[in-house]
Formats: sequence, structure tokens, C-alpha cells
Amino acid sequence: MITNQYLQSLADKSVIRTLSEWSTARGAEIGYDNVFDYSLGNPSVPCPPQFTAALERLLQTQEPVALHGYSPSQSLPSVRAAVAENLRRRFGIPYTAAHIFMTCGAAGALAHALRCVAAPGQEVITFAPYFPEYKPYVEGAGLVLKVVPPRTADFQIDFDALERQLTPNTAAILVNTPNNPSGAAYSAATLTRLAGVLAAASQKWGHIIFLISDEPYREILFGGKTVDYVAKFYPHTLTCYSFSKSLSLPGERIGYLAANPACEMADKIVPICAQISRGIGHNCPASSIQLAVAECLEQTSDLTVYEKNMELLYAKLVALGFRVQKPGGTFYIFPQSPEPDAVAFSEKAKKYDLALVPGDSFGCPGYFRMAYCISTEKVQRSLPALEKLMHTEYPR
Amino acid sequence: MITNQYLQSLADKSVIRTLSEWSTARGAEIGYDNVFDYSLGNPSVPCPPQFTAALERLLQTQEPVALHGYSPSQSLPSVRAAVAENLRRRFGIPYTAAHIFMTCGAAGALAHALRCVAAPGQEVITFAPYFPEYKPYVEGAGLVLKVVPPRTADFQIDFDALERQLTPNTAAILVNTPNNPSGAAYSAATLTRLAGVLAAASQKWGHIIFLISDEPYREILFGGKTVDYVAKFYPHTLTCYSFSKSLSLPGERIGYLAANPACEMADKIVPICAQISRGIGHNCPASSIQLAVAECLEQTSDLTVYEKNMELLYAKLVALGFRVQKPGGTFYIFPQSPEPDAVAFSEKAKKYDLALVPGDSFGCPGYFRMAYCISTEKVQRSLPALEKLMHTEYPR
Repeated sequence: MITNQYLQSLADKSVIRTLSEWSTARGAEIGYDNVFDYSLGNPSVPCPPQFTAALERLLQTQEPVALHGYSPSQSLPSVRAAVAENLRRRFGIPYTAAHIFMTCGAAGALAHALRCVAAPGQEVITFAPYFPEYKPYVEGAGLVLKVVPPRTADFQIDFDALERQLTPNTAAILVNTPNNPSGAAYSAATLTRLAGVLAAASQKWGHIIFLISDEPYREILFGGKTVDYVAKFYPHTLTCYSFSKSLSLPGERIGYLAANPACEMADKIVPICAQISRGIGHNCPASSIQLAVAECLEQTSDLTVYEKNMELLYAKLVALGFRVQKPGGTFYIFPQSPEPDAVAFSEKAKKYDLALVPGDSFGCPGYFRMAYCISTEKVQRSLPALEKLMHTEYPR
Repeated sequence: MITNQYLQSLADKSVIRTLSEWSTARGAEIGYDNVFDYSLGNPSVPCPPQFTAALERLLQTQEPVALHGYSPSQSLPSVRAAVAENLRRRFGIPYTAAHIFMTCGAAGALAHALRCVAAPGQEVITFAPYFPEYKPYVEGAGLVLKVVPPRTADFQIDFDALERQLTPNTAAILVNTPNNPSGAAYSAATLTRLAGVLAAASQKWGHIIFLISDEPYREILFGGKTVDYVAKFYPHTLTCYSFSKSLSLPGERIGYLAANPACEMADKIVPICAQISRGIGHNCPASSIQLAVAECLEQTSDLTVYEKNMELLYAKLVALGFRVQKPGGTFYIFPQSPEPDAVAFSEKAKKYDLALVPGDSFGCPGYFRMAYCISTEKVQRSLPALEKLMHTEYPR
């Protein structure tokens, strides 16, 4: 019997996807090259040639039965060991293969992390603005998503608001830094204070509150900064990583969950993930993709284009009078809408062939997101459209 | 807070996996080549060269950004269309791309099918002997698995027993033909009668009971038979397929769900699957694997070795006095144990370096499974060990 549960969800269409479909339709009219499509967070630079070479080499040199064979339920040991070594060396945390579970992207990592540390009915807290898919991810695990309102001054954490959301029923906190959609990276001060709050709350409520850190944009940091690795600040951290952005492989569905070796029951996290997989039909990422990525842990795509695009946009937005935080990373920027209703603003922007996503679905009305993972040339061509939009619709 | 839910499941270790680990350990002592490891259903023949060539060609000729880009949430349109065309032509059912949802193997297909047609708390009925992972698959979706006892005379369906299990709370029936572990393929007569029973029960209870058909062994049929395609017998059928066995790609996690265009709400099944994916972190199989498989829909690995192995084993088992049904397909055979306790028999078999899986975990005590996806040469060498086991432990 087909039930209403999912039929109803069909109506709950993603605003981002709807806007992307508008861009495609508009592109059919005027040429897609003339649509300034800032809707989707889809990498625009190719994967590094090392990835292609690694996969070709595997196909040419490995026995097919072994190359394409089942991964063990905890994923491929050699890949887990390589990821652990890479994280150990970069961040100084003593991960071993026992702490790494390869997943189908960050979505797979989050699906496991949530089920691992929270029981149905418990609460997971995240911070606005947040990736809209967190809602189906959390609710799909039978959990309740609670959202801390945005601190729009700098998109760091409003700790007073967080304290008000913590309850005995809080199982985990879900952070995303650098952040989609704000582009903000949490400072070391923010992460230090967050760790303190979680340690105190864990003590107060008598159970460990886990920190789930969603880090697909970890390698896309601007201004020559190095990352403040979240798990270094709080032991009970499950790091959810994806190679989608760093290696431009979003369709290949490859990432991992890394359990801080100092977390509660650290040696049980990966075995528990393997059990969770049975119930949700996950059963490891594609074996050849796991193996190819393991050979590219030192590489990234050429990510410099994103910073170049950001600088162009940021300068123009500031010049046009937008209130906007300069992103610390990612390929998003999240300015304040020139009118309080960002949905209305987004509609007006379409007249200038600009696809800008209203912040409402990120839990932050009055702002809008631009995903500048497009060519720099197109960013440049979009600047006059932005200017025309502002001068025509919002004359000073 | 890490809960007991999954910690407890860690103790629930797979008998098959335990036996496979015994084989590996024993292999470390006497050489794995001397262990007659019939434990795991892992294909032993390589993928067809066309698959390797297709993936290499994609890597060499496609733009990386497109090749490795996100699949739409309903999976890649060109791949869905190719699968639909293939099924249409082979089985005469008017599938279109709208009815096909690409999944991470049969496990992914089943995870979606179960959530699509059943609401938490509803019942799913399967037939012993059955693949033990059905239990976590069904329970992971919040459903109740009910098992119809085996009809050991021929491993077809005991319809009287099925009728006793049908209730107003039955959402779906889960079949697996050709069957793991029995090797039996349902006859057209069985499938016709099953369709009649389901149509009558659907009418009686006032809701459609879906048929979920798990078909990873569809192409491994013996005796020159062609498949009785399950969905041809009952309109409300969701076919769950995997290329793991037919193309020897189990680690690449690639398969599909095909909704019979005549089923209830046929045009909603795939959109519902895309919604389900968000909640379980599935998000489509790897894009390059989807594309490569779409070019190999007419191919299979060389599957003849399985029939050769089956004939060798079947003849020897019969000669040794086993009660055994001749498999109609798969790479499994499921003889009756020479003593009622198949676990005790399996323990004795280890003394002869034979890894035989007791039928208890398949819901069929007193039988045992041999997975003969190993080299024919090893099957031949195992025959004297089988003989010695029988003559020593069970003298007439």
C-alpha cells in the first residue's frame, strides 16, 4: 500500500531545484550562456587529472574480480588506512583505519552519523543559515531538527540562543564550516567556545552530546588561511567529509565518516556504521571509486577560481550597497536582500536573468545565496545585470 | 548519545561472514587454495571486457565536470531510458525512463521499494529459505518481516501457509527467484497462482498488496531456460535488480528499481524513491558506473562456469546419498543435512576444510548452502573432501 508519507513530501519541492529548472528553461529561450545561474552548488572545475589517471590505471592493471568485488561491510581496509594516514598527518589526530568509514558522499556520512549517535525522537541542533537538506536527513533518521537562529552580524554562533535550545533530549549538534550558504568559516574562538558549551551540557545532562561536523568545503578556504579542523576542538566529533567539492566528483558519491579516536566508544563507531548500512541499503561506495580517490588524497581540483569569483562578486555587491559578509571559503556568498522579502527580490532578479536563491529555505529570510561555481567570465558578465537590477528595481 | 539500538546489533553477527572468516583464517594455515570455501556469494568470473572498455572510454572522451557531475535526484535520464528500453524489448512490458530508478545495487533498490509501498509497522511477507539480510532490510525500514515456512519438496511456494500469513496489515510480498539459497526458480504456475492470491487479498483488504521481486540472479538460469519475468504475472510489481552477479560488479553497487507501468500510481514510484533517498543518504549510484553499465545492458560475464560447477556438485551430492533439489539457477545449492542439526554438520565439515553454511539463518534448519562461485578446478578438488566427510562422519 502506497502511503501518504512520501506522497505528501513530493509537494515539498526544493526551492533551489525549482530555480535551477527556471534557469534551464530560460536558457532554452535565450541560450544558457546568457542566464546568470547562481542556483546550484555544482563544482565548475574539472577533477584533477590524477583522479582520471588513477581510475584508468586501476582498470588496466587490477584483476577485475578483485577491483569490482564487494567491499567489506566497513569499507575497503586499504582506503580507510590511507584516509586515516592523511588526516593524521594533516591534523595531528591519531586516527587509524579503525576510525574511518567510507561513505556515499557527505549525505551518506551524515545518514550514518545521525543514526549512530541519536535514537529516534531525540533532537539534533543546527545553526541557521543551514543546508536545507538537513531537514530530510535528520527527519529521515526519525530525529527532530532544531535550528538556532542566525547571527547575521558575522554568521558565527549565537551562543545564548544555542543554550536555550539545548535540552536533556539533545543528542547531537550539527555544524557546517565553511558554511553553505553563508561562506563563513567558524573561528577558532567560536569552536573553542562551542566545545566548552557541549562539554558542560554533556556533564549536566549525563550523556555525551556528539558534534557532527559536515565538511565538504574544508579545502575551499580563502585568503591563504588554513583550516581550523573541528575535531581538534572537541573529542566527541564525527567528521563527515565529501570529495564532491575538493575533487569535483559530486556524482561519484564518495566521502567518509571519521570518528575522533578520543570520542565516546571510538572503536565502536565504524562497526555501528556497518550495521546501520544494512538497514538503509548503503553498503559502501563504489569500490573502484574508493580505490581511485585513495590515490588522490593529496590532490584537489584547481580551487582558485572560486576565490577569484568571490572577490569579483564581493567587490561589486559592496559597491552596489549590499550588506554582505566576505566569505571565508566555499563557493557561496549570502548577502542581505535589498528588500525584506528575499523571495520577492529573487523574482525581480529573474527579469535580469539572474538566478538568486532566497535565504528562507536556509532558515534565514531576508538574505539570498549566490553559488559562484561558474566560470569567471560569466561572473564578470553578470555584474552589469546585478547593477541594472539594483538601479532599476531599487533606485536610491 | 550512542544508544543500545546498534550496539546490540553488533552481537548479531552474520553466520555466513563468520564462516568466511574461518575460511580465511584456515587459509592462512594451510593455504587458501586448500580451503573449500563455499561460504560467500561473491562472483568468481570477471566482468565482461565491454564494461572495462566502456568506463575507460568515458574517462578518455567525456568532459570530467559532466561525467562526474551530480545525477538528478531520480538518477541519470539517459541510463534510465536505456534500462527501460532493454526491459521493454526483453520482457514486453512498456517501461519508460519514468519507471526506472537507478540504485546502489539490489540492497539500495530494496531499501527504496520497501519504504515506497509500506508504512512503518506494516508487514512484509517472504518465503523461507530466504537471504538473511532481508531481516535488517525490512526492520531497518520500520517494518515487520513475516516468513512463510519452506516447501522443501521443491522450494516453490506453500500457498496454504502463505494464506495464513496474509493480514489486513500486509503491505508487500518479497520474493527472490532464482532463489538464494535454494537455487530454485519459481515456475510460471507458481507465479500465476501467487498473482491470483495477491489480487484476491488486495481486493479483500481494500488496498493493493505490492510484489517486490528481488532478482539479482535473473540471468543465471540453467538448462537453457529463459526467465519467467515476475512482473509479467502481477501488475503491482517492483522489480529490484542488481548488476552484481550478471556483470560481476558487486563492489560497484549498481542496480535499479523498475516499477511495472501497470502498477498502482506507477508514475509516482520514481519521484517517491527520490524523496526516500534524501532520508537515507542514498543519492544515486556513482555517475560513471551508471553510464558504463548502460553501455553493457546486452552483456553478461561468462556465467557458464556456474552451471558447470552445479552439475559437478549435484552429481556428487546425489551419489553420496544427499537429498537435494537440482538448482534452476543462481550459484547456490541447498542440500538437506545428513543429520537434523545442520550447524553440527557444518562444524564437522570444517574438519575436512569445507565451509558449508547451515540453513538455520536462511529460515530453513536441517539444510545447508554451498555457494559454488569458485573455480571449477577447486570444486573438483573438493569432491573427495565431501566424500571423506560423509564416509567418516556418517558411515552407512
